[in-house]
This record gives sequence, C-alpha cells and structure tokens, in this order.
Amino acid sequence: MLQNIRVVLVNTSHPGNIGGAARAMKNMGLGQLVLVAPHSFPAPEASARASGADDVLANARVVPTLEEALAGCALVLGTSARDRSLPWPMLEPRECGHKTVVAAAGGQPVALVFGREHAGLTNDELQRCHFHVHIPANPDFSSLNLAAAVQVLAYEVRTAWLATQGAPAAGPEPAAPALATMDQMEGFYRHLETTLVEVGFLDPANPRHLMARLRRLFGRSNVDHTEMSILRGILTETQKAVRGEPHKRKEP
Amino acid sequence: MLQNIRVVLVNTSHPGNIGGAARAMKNMGLGQLVLVAPHSFPAPEASARASGADDVLANARVVPTLEEALAGCALVLGTSARDRSLPWPMLEPRECGHKTVVAAAGGQPVALVFGREHAGLTNDELQRCHFHVHIPANPDFSSLNLAAAVQVLAYEVRTAWLATQGAPAAGPEPAAPALATMDQMEGFYRHLETTLVEVGFLDPANPRHLMARLRRLFGRSNVDHTEMSILRGILTETQKAVRGEPHKRKEP
Repeated sequence: MLQNIRVVLVNTSHPGNIGGAARAMKNMGLGQLVLVAPHSFPAPEASARASGADDVLANARVVPTLEEALAGCALVLGTSARDRSLPWPMLEPRECGHKTVVAAAGGQPVALVFGREHAGLTNDELQRCHFHVHIPANPDFSSLNLAAAVQVLAYEVRTAWLATQGAPAAGPEPAAPALATMDQMEGFYRHLETTLVEVGFLDPANPRHLMARLRRLFGRSNVDHTEMSILRGILTETQKAVRGEPHKRKEP
Repeated sequence: MLQNIRVVLVNTSHPGNIGGAARAMKNMGLGQLVLVAPHSFPAPEASARASGADDVLANARVVPTLEEALAGCALVLGTSARDRSLPWPMLEPRECGHKTVVAAAGGQPVALVFGREHAGLTNDELQRCHFHVHIPANPDFSSLNLAAAVQVLAYEVRTAWLATQGAPAAGPEPAAPALATMDQMEGFYRHLETTLVEVGFLDPANPRHLMARLRRLFGRSNVDHTEMSILRGILTETQKAVRGEPHKRKEP
C-alpha cells in the first residue's frame, strides 16, 4: 500500500537534500523516489546523507519533467507556502497524510511533490496539484529544509497508515470508482483548451487565468474514469459540431 | 509560552546535525537549545545547516552534563527506541506535543531530550525522563537523522500549540468564495442539457443517465460564482459557434 506513494522532488539543488529525503522516506516506510531534473545526481553527498537508504537512491527515477513524474497518479499533493495569487484547496500535513493513505489504499498512485530549496514550486507546477499542503511554521522563519519537509509529510503518512492497521471495526470502505489518472487529466485539459479556442471562448492571445480556474474546478472533483469518458466525448462532439462535421449521437 | 520549551541534544557527534536541529526548531517557533558536551561546537557545518537560525545557535547553552541541562524543568521527555529492558511510560509524538504544550502553558520549563546519533540515550539518561517518546518508524530502518527527529517533535509541539491558539494549524483560511446557489446550479444544468443536445452529444430520445452523471460530477465540486460564470459563458459561446452565430471572445 505504501508502495503506491511516490515522493517527487523538483529541480533539487543540493544532493545532500536528496539523500536526507531518501533517509526520511525509508524511515517512514516509503520507497518510491522520483527526481525531476535534479542539479546533481547521483552524488557522494546524496549517499552520505542517505545513511543506509541507498536502495531508495538506487531505485530513484530521474525524469525531465514534472508531467512524467506524475504519470499514472490519481492524487497529487504539492507543498506550498501559504500566499498564492490563485487560492487553491489547502491541506494541513495531517489531512495530507490521511488523504494520501486513503487514495493509496484504493490501489492508485499518489504523489507528494516538493519544490526547489529556495523557490518552491512554480505556479504552473502548483496548478497540476489537486491540493496544496502547507506545513505550519514560524511566520518569521518559515522555510523548512527540503529533507525536513519530506520528513514531516512522510511522518504524517506513516501515522495515518498505522491508524488503518488497527483493524477498522466497521470493515473496509466500499470500493471507490477508479479515478482518472494525471496523464488522462492532462490530456483532458489540452483537449478542453483546444475546444475552448475553437468555440471562441478562450483567446490564446489573452488567456488570463481561465485554464488555471478550470484546472482548479475539475482538479477538486476527483473525476472518475466514466466521467472522464463523458467529458472527452462532449469535447469531441462539440468540435465536430463547430466544424460542421457529421457526428453520431452517443453517450458512453 | 513556547519559550518555556527547551531542546536538549546529548553528546552530538556531527555539528551539521546541531545546525539542522536549530533550523527545525526556529521553523517551528522554538528557540531554547541546550547542548550537553557536543563533540564539536561552534563549527562551520552547524552554521551552514542552520541556514539562518544563527540566533538559535548563538543563544545555545553548552553544559557538561544532562543534569545541568535539565535544571529547573518540570517535565522531561526523552526520545527512545521502543525496546528497553526497563519499561517506561511511552508517548507517541502527538501526545508528546500535547503534554509539552500543556506543561509549558502552565509556565514551567519542559525539556525534549535527544540522544547520540548512533547510540541514543543511555539507560541512566532515560531514567531521568518522565516519559519516553518513540517516533513510529520502519522496523527495518528505524533510526532517524537527529535533526529529522527534532523536526518531527517540534512539528507536533507547534501543531498542539496552534490548536490552543484557536487557529487552524495552516493559519486563517482565505475567505471562501461564495458558492453558486441551488437555483443557479439548476439553471446551469438546463443550459448544459440544451447545449449537449445542440452539439449532438445528448439524444433526447435516449438520454440514459447522462445528466445524472454530470449532476453528480458538478454537484460535488462546490462550484463558486466565478466558476459558474465561466461555465455559463462556455455554454453560450458553444451554442453560438454551433449555430454559426457571430460571437466575441470573452472570459469573465
């Protein structure tokens, strides 16, 4: 179950932090590490700080883009400072641990995403997350070390997971429908954007926050597979209708 | 109140861990650091890892014995692996945070004691503690980095403290946007249904469960006013495009 949870580090500068994160992960029982374009990896400082979590480093996947790191994920949680121009659903670490464990128990991959040491995640990256997680901190000194932030969220994941190991008296939750994966969601957003341009609602020269707002709306809906088919079907038929192409009525 | 809480590090080998602990403390609003016979302090690695928590290091007290470090304390909590020959009252980190805050709020000093990197606290040292705290960890890889252990307990202290402040741990929520009313939602569903018929996706002679599925999807999204304007705008522009009517690009 914990193997469905991946930790994604974006553009990490200091390899020591990668090692520290790997150690924190293994301490808490997590093993899936994905590195998006790290500045330096593998590196001796990473192995030194991993201090025995070498298997986590050896199995780490290095990918060029966040999109690749999130492929297949049904739930994506991104760490964030509080103030953002576009408010987004925020979780505390404890809620993050709970949601992560519930989704992972359903069998679907979950990603916990951590940004750059000094700059965090970009707005574009944050908009790929279903939820933002804020670790409560001293307002005058709020930036945690990267490995320390991984430690806090991994600790909350383990705590939530241990709570589920105590044999729930009421029995298992009813099976939730399979959620659309992140790559399906990205495909949908691309299709939606194209369609909105075709119908004349979205001006590519002046997109404003339209796609971000739609990402936020659909991102918090936990769209399932059937719904995704319906949404894609609506877009396809809309494009045909706008282009004057023949179409057949259908409903998945 | 938080100033009544001191972090005590016993015989720390690596000054980098002292710096990492200082940073974690300051991030969580703690400032009182006591070092019992550190191997090397002050040290450049401590300052480097403190990364701005220099004031915590500068104010750190260095003492020769644990007894001196604990002078005046009303409550002492020591971190420990679980298996000890002499059973002792054990707390989980969450209970530790709660007990610490309750005692500190009463005005009396509380100490959180952390042992050596490899050997932890001795039995003699552990017996000076009122409670032992065990951070739940992977049984096959249970030894946390010292600064990471400080981070977890300091995080639980801050979370417990914030709960007493009557504020959610993540700080005040930004004012939630006004949600669309039920009649606005009904107006939207009618508009959506009409539009889906016009684009040829919905067959009025055979509607199946399409609208019910879309109601369920949008119903759980808590659509707000701005989003409702966007959705209605998309439908209006889609109708114009399908009908071949002129339209102007817009985004509410």
